[in-house]
Order: sequence, then C-alpha cells, then structure tokens
Amino acid sequence: MTTLINRQSGDRPPPPPAPTQSQSQSSQQQQKSHSNVIRKPSIDNVDSDGEDKLIDESNIEDLVKELPQSSDKTVQFLDNMLAVLPNRWRNYIVRSIFTLLMVFGFGLVIYWGPLALMILTLCIQVKCFQEIIAIGYSVYRVHGLPWFRSLSWYMLITSNYFFYAESLVEYFALVLKQPNIMQPLISYHRFISFTLYVIGFVWFVLSLVKRYYLRQFSLFAWTHVTLLIVVTQSYLIIQNMFEGLIWFIVPVSMIVINDSMAYLFGFFFGKTPLIKLSPKKTWEGFIGGVISTVFLGMIISYLLCSYQFFVCPIESYDPIERIFKCTPSKLFQLTEYCLPETLQLIFKIFGLPQTISLYPFVLHSLALSLFSSIIGPFGGFFASGFKRAFKIKDFGDVIPGHGGLVDRFDCQYLMASFVNVYIYSFVRAPNPTKILHLIYQLKPEDQMNIYQMLQEHLNITI
Amino acid sequence: MTTLINRQSGDRPPPPPAPTQSQSQSSQQQQKSHSNVIRKPSIDNVDSDGEDKLIDESNIEDLVKELPQSSDKTVQFLDNMLAVLPNRWRNYIVRSIFTLLMVFGFGLVIYWGPLALMILTLCIQVKCFQEIIAIGYSVYRVHGLPWFRSLSWYMLITSNYFFYAESLVEYFALVLKQPNIMQPLISYHRFISFTLYVIGFVWFVLSLVKRYYLRQFSLFAWTHVTLLIVVTQSYLIIQNMFEGLIWFIVPVSMIVINDSMAYLFGFFFGKTPLIKLSPKKTWEGFIGGVISTVFLGMIISYLLCSYQFFVCPIESYDPIERIFKCTPSKLFQLTEYCLPETLQLIFKIFGLPQTISLYPFVLHSLALSLFSSIIGPFGGFFASGFKRAFKIKDFGDVIPGHGGLVDRFDCQYLMASFVNVYIYSFVRAPNPTKILHLIYQLKPEDQMNIYQMLQEHLNITI
Repeated sequence: MTTLINRQSGDRPPPPPAPTQSQSQSSQQQQKSHSNVIRKPSIDNVDSDGEDKLIDESNIEDLVKELPQSSDKTVQFLDNMLAVLPNRWRNYIVRSIFTLLMVFGFGLVIYWGPLALMILTLCIQVKCFQEIIAIGYSVYRVHGLPWFRSLSWYMLITSNYFFYAESLVEYFALVLKQPNIMQPLISYHRFISFTLYVIGFVWFVLSLVKRYYLRQFSLFAWTHVTLLIVVTQSYLIIQNMFEGLIWFIVPVSMIVINDSMAYLFGFFFGKTPLIKLSPKKTWEGFIGGVISTVFLGMIISYLLCSYQFFVCPIESYDPIERIFKCTPSKLFQLTEYCLPETLQLIFKIFGLPQTISLYPFVLHSLALSLFSSIIGPFGGFFASGFKRAFKIKDFGDVIPGHGGLVDRFDCQYLMASFVNVYIYSFVRAPNPTKILHLIYQLKPEDQMNIYQMLQEHLNITI
Repeated sequence: MTTLINRQSGDRPPPPPAPTQSQSQSSQQQQKSHSNVIRKPSIDNVDSDGEDKLIDESNIEDLVKELPQSSDKTVQFLDNMLAVLPNRWRNYIVRSIFTLLMVFGFGLVIYWGPLALMILTLCIQVKCFQEIIAIGYSVYRVHGLPWFRSLSWYMLITSNYFFYAESLVEYFALVLKQPNIMQPLISYHRFISFTLYVIGFVWFVLSLVKRYYLRQFSLFAWTHVTLLIVVTQSYLIIQNMFEGLIWFIVPVSMIVINDSMAYLFGFFFGKTPLIKLSPKKTWEGFIGGVISTVFLGMIISYLLCSYQFFVCPIESYDPIERIFKCTPSKLFQLTEYCLPETLQLIFKIFGLPQTISLYPFVLHSLALSLFSSIIGPFGGFFASGFKRAFKIKDFGDVIPGHGGLVDRFDCQYLMASFVNVYIYSFVRAPNPTKILHLIYQLKPEDQMNIYQMLQEHLNITI
C-alpha cells in the first residue's frame, strides 16, 4: 500500500518552484516520486473569465500533479518486445496481458475458497480508499494539518470493524459452527463499533484548527463519502458471496466482460461518440458490450450452475476439505421451460424441440447482465467525471495499462448493491439457520411461545 | 417549507452589486428576502497572505450573506414588552419563551400518539435538510446549473422512501395487524428504493456539465453527507420510538435539559472558556449541564416508567382508542436493589432502609444522561465549527432566539444512534413477533424443520 510522505515538513507550503514549462522532465521526475506527494506551491487565483471561484478549478492541475498516474514505464520489458507495433496496438496488448493476468489471479483466489476471496475484497477496498483519499489530501492540501491522515485511516478501520467483523462473525458462526468463540464480540459488536466511531467524531472536533475549518470539514465529508462507496460496497460483495460464490463471480465477470467487450467493439467498430464525459466511449462499443455481456453472461452462468462449489451457500462450506456440499436450491436445478408460442411454431417447422432445459439462475443472469452492461458503465462515467473534475488521468498506477484500482473497479460500484437487492427481493427466502439462531437467543418462555404458535400454525395435533 | 428561488435566471452570475458598506440597510433587505437566495457577484480571489486556496475562504462571507439568519425582528412585540431589560436578559427571555413553547408543542404531539410523532420527525428532518442544503447551494453557487435543486430533493425523497416506508410498513404490520395491505410494496421495497436511487445516480451523471464538474461533485457529496446525517438519524429516532415512547422522550428531553441547564449555568456562573470553537461555552456550564442532566434525567425516567403509554412497545398500541396496553417488561417494574455496603452502613446509622426500590430503566437512564451531556455537546461543537467554516451565524431563522432547526437539533445528532445501539446491545432481546413473521415467510418444509429443531432444543417429548 502506497503511503504519502511529505517531502517537506512544517505548517506553511514551500515557495513556488520554477514554472512548469519542462513537462518532459517533470514527467520523469514524477516516475521516481510517485509514492510521494509534495505540498504544492502557491499560484495566485487570478481568474481568466472574471468569475470568482469558491473551489478554484484553475490550479487543480498543479495540486494533483504529483499523484501517481499510470505509465508505460513499469512494463519496460514488454515495451521493448512490442516496440515494432504502433502505439495504439501496443497499449491494447499491454492492457490485454494484464487483464488476463488479473483474471488468472482472480481464478486462483476463487480456488482458495471464500476466506481468500474475503481477504482479497478487503485488500482491494483498502487500496481503493487510499487512492480516493490521496486525491482529497492533494486537493485540500492538508498535509501539514495535525491528525488528518490518522483520522481518515482510523475511520476506515472503524467502519471496517463494523462491517467486516459482522461478516466474519457470520462466517465463523455458519461455517465453523462455533458461534460462541466470539460471543462477547458479537453481543456488543454494534456498541463497540459505535464507540469507535464516536471517538473518531470527538477526535475530529477536537482537531479543528482555525483557518483550516473549511478544508477540514470538506475532507471529513470526503472521507465519509469514500467510506460510503468503498466499505459498504465491499460489505455487500461479501454478503452476496455468502449466498453462493456464483452470486459473486457472475456479476464481477459480467462487468469485466462488458468492459473488455465494449473496449474491443469500440476499438474495431467505434465511430459514434456516446457521452461527452468519456470521449473514448462509443455507441458501437456500448451496444457491442450489452450484447456480448448478455450472451457470455448466460453461458458462464450455465457453466457454473452445475458445480456445487459455486452454487452452495456458505453454510455448506467445509473449510478443511475446502469443498461445498449441499443439495442445490431449485434455482440451480435443470428445469424444463416451454418456449413462447411463436417460437414453438418456428421450431416445429425445423423439427426442433419445443421446450428448453435451463437452470432458472440463467434467467436471473439476464437481469444481472442487463444491469451490468447498461447501468454499470454509469459507474465508469461517474469516475470519468470525477477524474475530469480533479484533472487527473487515473486514480493510481498499480495495474500497468489500466491505471489505479479504482479505474478498474469503477463499474463494480453499483453492481454489488444491485445483486444484493436483487437476491433479497427476488431470490432469497429468509434463512432457516439464521432464524433458529435468533430463536435460541430468546428467553425460554418466548421460545416455548414460538413453538406453540408454530404448532398451531402448522396444524400439528399431538 | 422554504423554497429557494433565483432572482435572476440564466447561466452566468449577475454583475457585482454596490460595495457592501451599508450593512444596516442590507440587514433589513435580508429580512424581506430570507426565502430567496441571490446568486452572488464575482469578487476576484486576490489573496492576502500569498497562499493559494482551492476552497477560497476569503469570499465565503459574501457567498452566504443572503442565507436567512436569526434576528430579533420577528418577535417585535416581545421586544417592545421587554425593552426595559438589558440586551443579555432580553435575549435570554426570548429564548426561554420559545423553549417553553417548543416543549409545550412537543408535549401536545406526544399526546396525539406515535403517528403524529413520526410525522413531526419527518417534518423536522425535511427542514433540517433544506437548511443544510441551502448553504451548499450558496457556497457552490450552482443556482444556474440545470437540475441540481431537483436532484437533491429527489435524493431526499428516495432515501426517505427507503427508510420511512420501512418504518411505516412496520407500523402498519405491528399496530394495525394488517401486514398484507402493503404486501407488494413490502416484498419489493428494497428493489423499488434501489431503482429510485439508481435513477438519481444516472440523472446526476447525465447532468454533469463541463466547467462545473468540481462543484457538481462537491454538491453531490454534500447531499449524501446531509442525507447520512439527517435521514438516518430520523429513521433511528423512529425505530427507538417503536421500542416504547420512553426511549424517544427521555433522550430528547435529556438533550433539551442539558442545552438549557448548560446555558443557565454558563449564564450565571460561566467563567472558564471550554473550547475555542464555541467561545460562549464554559466549563461551568458544561459541568452544571452534566449534573443537572443526570439528576433531572433520572427523575423524568422515574416518572415516565409508571405509565403504560410511555413504556409499552408499538405492537401494543391501539390506534383507535389511542392507548398502549401491555404488561410492561422487567425494565419498567419496580425492583428492589441492595445498596453498596459502605452506603448500607451509613444508612443503618441513620435508621434508613438498606435497599432501594427502582425501575431498572432508571439505571439505564444514567448511561443515556451521561452520553447526552458529555458527548452530545460535541454535536453542537461540530455544528459550531461548521458554521464558522462557512462564516454563518445560524443555519436559519425559523425559531426566534434559537436560529434554524439545525441549530437546535445539532446535539441530537449522535443521540439517536446511541440510543439505538444501546437498546440493541443492552436491552432488547430479539422480538418474538418479528421472528414469527419471518418463519411464516418460509417454505412449509422449512417451517416444519424449524419446528422439529425447536422441539429438540426445548427437549419436548411427545
């Protein structure tokens, strides 16, 4: 994880450097110092169009100049190998290679099981938080302010404690069947989390320093919005995972497929610009993305449906043998569907069968693929707009050819919420195991009451 | 509800007005136009101390000048009556009168029952949202931007739909015992809410306009943070109310008592300044507030504990007769407590009883009063810092002598969360009625399974 280090200390910013004419030099310098953020020199807010600006967009470029940006230098050896190709192709190949590497790595983590996936999600989340927060630091230039860095990391830890501990506790209760290991932590989980948050809140109020109020409040809001985006999404991703790995793998793959296929279609057929925010995106790419995602999404869903490893919920995971064992729910059992009448007629003519055998999940995957390919890109447009607002090219430089992690995961933003809401609304019945846990927490007389009410409800005569 | 109307239309801000010398005139003008926000003229960001500012604190005063601020004009008739008194006393009396009026109004709403309280909470929430958002509009001067006002109100409606509908549905299910009235809305509640949010999100992305990106994103964040503060708090307040009105009335009263008593103690004995953020607050006021809140809080708790109207949960509310009927839980039954040994000895000497009869709730109220008087004020400091950051005196002018609604409810901010977490962690066992509702939603075979597991667990032999 990249940490941001001040080159200079003290409270006031350093004097202005030489004018930024020698861009080529500074880009090399940027290479070396991309883990440092230098506090920026002052440039007078002289306004070109006579409009006063509360947020001064004129010097943002200078403020964010030192943030790490993607570069081709880190893949020098690839560059040498691909030197013969034109620039456009070279970029495409570098990007493809690293896409494949990521897909392979992702596959490996899936193989290691749900705990590894949870850890991966956590790591990605922390890195995304760091990337977004680093922009805030640069933009509001609060590097000299006491406590601010610690405070936002503290908030990250607090909110992660709140969300992750809950998931972990659930994991241990359901998988290891030992809910009592962490009983005190479970019982007082919310109270502990809230206490941690209140400490952060009081800390923030006490750290307020005159002259910096506005920037401190802005960064406080920035931290909260970042947490809202990053931590809640990763919590939902893990919750989806618990319903069966398929609910995690299929949506993530769909976004990847849509990104890649839209890029591919745009690359080969792209002509009509789609939206001003992302000038490289085209209607051809968008539509190609939708169609590919729907088809490939259905194929992947169909393939995964037959493996218990992907369709069984977390309760049925055996962490020692690293396998899932369960009777798959109806969603994952082949079902005979009648075709619509018009199609039946056509199929009759050609002597084809008039019913089709499908996993019901494949039909659900249709909804997922439409969302991921139609609404998903708006997460990308949102990120593009954000980058334009702050005049940065990328959120970071960890993945060659791709930029920062946020650049890659921008479209996943709303997807996790969608899947979660979708499962909750259309798929999941309340979980009997969880309800039993709830009942066991009741007083014996209430348990007895429920037992009798249930007896009545089920018309059981003794 | 005050709506903000542009005096001028079009995309560019109007030319600069006359220099702001005649403050007395402009304050009168302010009176007349306090429901309007005028788009602010340009003032060049010439910097006095040579530091460049991304957020330019130098002209904030001009930007927010037209926001409604508290004034004594609205209580002219009172002013005339109190003209003989010195200014400090007059302020105090105006403030006290309106405090009493508010307390009386609040009592009336409590008398009308839980539905009226829910509506009151909703109204306060909407007004608080409007006050905070209005500052954002002025500060980022996006009055000319298409859609922005509609968008943030849309977001308010969406999040209220999400939170309030859930509470209302619960209310109808538990109180009117007719969960089926709203069945489709309940089943797809999350999906509908999420769809509404996604529409807002897409709308925001499509409304992005070059040159305004930074301000649009800032205001988007501003809206989200405001929603986080305002809507979630009011949701939690209602959830607390459902556990019994006492969980709502006692905490709210404690904050009011603490505010008033700290003010009173500070007014009479205040000498030592407490915190730079709020120069009027003193240690004497703070400590006086804590002691008064603990004592008065216990007294109020003790008094309320004996009324079913306050201690029964929402399930036991009869909306036609407007009464609560239940057997109060152990928390609200007089219990004999032994005094600590040292106290017992002292009491023995004086021939006093060595046990004390208390409602257990009174002991819980100790935790609530300590939180409300020690941490509660930090909500106020936070609001003070916020007002200082934006150089405004008050959030609004709806309550004479008090300012805006946010000024009055700033300390309630963390209290609702605390009470909710406290109930969840230390008081509430899972609700048997809710668990039964969950079981009835299961498939018959799962219901049967739970029945058998429960039979085993309870060691029932047939």
